[in-house]
Amino acid sequence: MNISEKLGFTHIEWVDDHLVVLDQRKLPLSEEYFHIRTIDGAFYAIQNLVVRGAPLIGITAAYALCLIENHEDRDSFFVTCETLKSARPTAVNLSWAVNRMINAYESHVGDENLERILLDEAAKIHREDSKMCESIGLHGNKIIPDECRILTHCNAGALATGGIGTALGVIYTAFFSGKMIEVWVDETRPVFQGARLTAWELARAGVPHTLISDNASGKLMSENRINLVIVGADRVAKNLDFANKIGTYNLAVLARYHNIPFYCAAPTSTFDLNCPDGGSIEIENRSADEIRNVFGARISLPATPAYNPAFDITPNSLLTGMITENGILTP
Amino acid sequence: MNISEKLGFTHIEWVDDHLVVLDQRKLPLSEEYFHIRTIDGAFYAIQNLVVRGAPLIGITAAYALCLIENHEDRDSFFVTCETLKSARPTAVNLSWAVNRMINAYESHVGDENLERILLDEAAKIHREDSKMCESIGLHGNKIIPDECRILTHCNAGALATGGIGTALGVIYTAFFSGKMIEVWVDETRPVFQGARLTAWELARAGVPHTLISDNASGKLMSENRINLVIVGADRVAKNLDFANKIGTYNLAVLARYHNIPFYCAAPTSTFDLNCPDGGSIEIENRSADEIRNVFGARISLPATPAYNPAFDITPNSLLTGMITENGILTP
Repeated sequence: MNISEKLGFTHIEWVDDHLVVLDQRKLPLSEEYFHIRTIDGAFYAIQNLVVRGAPLIGITAAYALCLIENHEDRDSFFVTCETLKSARPTAVNLSWAVNRMINAYESHVGDENLERILLDEAAKIHREDSKMCESIGLHGNKIIPDECRILTHCNAGALATGGIGTALGVIYTAFFSGKMIEVWVDETRPVFQGARLTAWELARAGVPHTLISDNASGKLMSENRINLVIVGADRVAKNLDFANKIGTYNLAVLARYHNIPFYCAAPTSTFDLNCPDGGSIEIENRSADEIRNVFGARISLPATPAYNPAFDITPNSLLTGMITENGILTP
Repeated sequence: MNISEKLGFTHIEWVDDHLVVLDQRKLPLSEEYFHIRTIDGAFYAIQNLVVRGAPLIGITAAYALCLIENHEDRDSFFVTCETLKSARPTAVNLSWAVNRMINAYESHVGDENLERILLDEAAKIHREDSKMCESIGLHGNKIIPDECRILTHCNAGALATGGIGTALGVIYTAFFSGKMIEVWVDETRPVFQGARLTAWELARAGVPHTLISDNASGKLMSENRINLVIVGADRVAKNLDFANKIGTYNLAVLARYHNIPFYCAAPTSTFDLNCPDGGSIEIENRSADEIRNVFGARISLPATPAYNPAFDITPNSLLTGMITENGILTP
């Protein structure tokens, strides 16, 4: 049984003529599937976090391009591609995957099997991502001690990818190879991906874990209760600066202050060689209501001004290593 | 009109024969008053955060000791004192205020005006705290530039004291002296005192402010959008290490990394000279449900293990200065 099977859930699958994804907005209390049958449905799912995580967004967009009714209409196909790319600005895998689909389209336009060819390409992107996660897990496992208390941020797990995850892929590989692993899961305000998704995944996989508020990370580090930090990435610049969920930079600074190794795990599909450094990565600002309200409960006055950047940039100077499917890169 | 009057709300007042406090659990959406008529009511109010903030907890406990029916029963009085002290372990003002009441009691036990004397002492503690806040504001204002973007954590405002607040007391004094002040309010998980209380207070006072998630502080610092950090304290050790709301230590480390001045504002009633350093301060652990749930909404599975320390310790080495009513202390 490989690691993927040990996780015990399927969260993205092409079924007959459409895409079925686990609705991540409903986790962890409800496991509902969301059926994507149209481009509009895919756009909605990406923008509204039904699916999230840079690699998974890319895979979803690739499959979505198999839902176009009239593939022969070249103009329409390209308009759709641009629309999908705009659903979320920071994750580079989205345009990377759409560009792969465009290449397949260009090579086979006019082919009577075009639909089949596009679906094969999307499935290939999915399969390759799963393989990249496995390789990241194997490379990353080399730097995990036999006993290790690991802090992770947000969700860079199976739920963020087409495989076992990136940061969590390393954790699963270490855990299932018999190492004593304990995971500190920070809740990851404002959207609580840590509390809702990472804690759910780890529970499913049977990995010991403890949930904390984002504010408790410093205290734990000062008490030597965190041996290593590992996070994912939404976009990696050429110099290994990277964008990841807001709060990642805080952890990088805290880890440096406490001399704790700080790793990022990301497939090369998350690298954007057009970005020389972090300063050129666009950061998505999301609605102020994600800060003012929590699942319908108002925690501040409706008129309170709020600032809600979804990501921050961690400079390569704070990075111990970037774990990729090809090995571990150092700045 | 003094600053206190400019704030436009009253949050603790002895009315006729009992204590009336603004119910801070209900803020900011509802402004309801909670009537404390018994010791049990006071204990409940302190433990359940109807009132919070180290100085305000002390004042509440002092007034509460005026609610005892039979003041002549010395044993009962002392048992009540110990009970009140145990309501929350970290804020030293609680035992400080109760000890002041004990001294007044011991000096006048048997006096037919004992009830009146105790009430006078409680009112005096309240009045002195208000004066300490004013002095802290005046001393602190000296280190605030004419234009300043200030980050504060949790609520060290009027709502935490018997006056204009400690950290916010400095901010109010600077603002009403005509300085260009903008405040970054971090929401302060898990109990959201920043979002619920500080943003409400600042809106009432007309001070420009923006709410952020706790995770966004690092990004703002790295972009030079925070000029100064000022927080309160729940207990200050002899060497100026101090306990404050969880996440304070994270900000102290981040501020140091970015060379941003980091101040704590606290009256000397928050100092515990019995604690030589931060290591001897007891840290309250609160219910894991504060992490697992948010205002009734479950954000993680009910079985998810969670760790919820309410405070952390900031060492004096990360402190630029401790602003007290007597002036600014440096480590």
